[in-house]
Amino acid sequence: MTTTDAHPTTTIEADPDVPTVRMVREFDAPRELVYRAHVDPELVRQWMGPHSIAMDIEVWDMRTGGEYRYTATRDGEEIAHFYGAVHRVDENERIVQTFGFEEMPDAVSLDTLTFHELPGGRTRLEALSVVYDFEARAGMLASGMEVGVDEGYAALDDVLARLGGAAERA
Amino acid sequence: MTTTDAHPTTTIEADPDVPTVRMVREFDAPRELVYRAHVDPELVRQWMGPHSIAMDIEVWDMRTGGEYRYTATRDGEEIAHFYGAVHRVDENERIVQTFGFEEMPDAVSLDTLTFHELPGGRTRLEALSVVYDFEARAGMLASGMEVGVDEGYAALDDVLARLGGAAERA
Repeated sequence: MTTTDAHPTTTIEADPDVPTVRMVREFDAPRELVYRAHVDPELVRQWMGPHSIAMDIEVWDMRTGGEYRYTATRDGEEIAHFYGAVHRVDENERIVQTFGFEEMPDAVSLDTLTFHELPGGRTRLEALSVVYDFEARAGMLASGMEVGVDEGYAALDDVLARLGGAAERA
Repeated sequence: MTTTDAHPTTTIEADPDVPTVRMVREFDAPRELVYRAHVDPELVRQWMGPHSIAMDIEVWDMRTGGEYRYTATRDGEEIAHFYGAVHRVDENERIVQTFGFEEMPDAVSLDTLTFHELPGGRTRLEALSVVYDFEARAGMLASGMEVGVDEGYAALDDVLARLGGAAERA
């Protein structure tokens, strides 16, 4: 596996007709690894969110009918409490879940993560979120989410490179 | 408590700008009872869905991070398997959950039930659903959902009248 300093970009699209946000990112790793890095909490904590923020995962039960809950901390201070319910998990293919945080109890999105297999052992990850109205989406886009996404996915590249290397050595 | 044969109507609105469906129905019962009839599976099975269909509830865990699952049967034959994950429950006030069924694994909605207290011990229930696109919403509206809603809520009127009567006798 080749790794480079230049990480692929994440495309973030706001649909003009419906209050959705679509994020697309490619990874230089097989679909099973990208999926595993989303359902195994030991791996998730290594990459999720911006660099400056640590994720303290309390619950990460990625099964149909499961749930998750984690606290974001910066320099040991709790800054946000995220949680959601897991609607459906199709192994290696799709995760459908909700997303919210205690600091804004009315904010909620329905998120579908789809893991697409690409040629050459690569993967395209698509995350499609829908919220109740365009105002809520504007708030979501204005939240600085792209920093967490870009930095998180760059860290995920590194996690996947380690996992892939480990798989090659095994 | 007065009950009449003429049940209140349910308003079902499709928003022109976003793929949501809003259902509003008033009940002649206090908010705590209407809420209880949604979270207690012994009560839910007495009213949910059309008359002709029985609900076999396998899981009904109405807490933040919970889940539910039930099978609809007609004359003993299984006709659909419904399930969802519970994003958030604010007791007596609000339930936010997902909704899907095994027969159409891509179909999913995010549903918020809000229990509004009205004067005179009455309650307005609002159910706001959002789906990913207008096509999915059209399918939802064309599914005959209003029959299940109208018949189910008429049965809920009866359940609430019994609960209210029991509360008065106690």
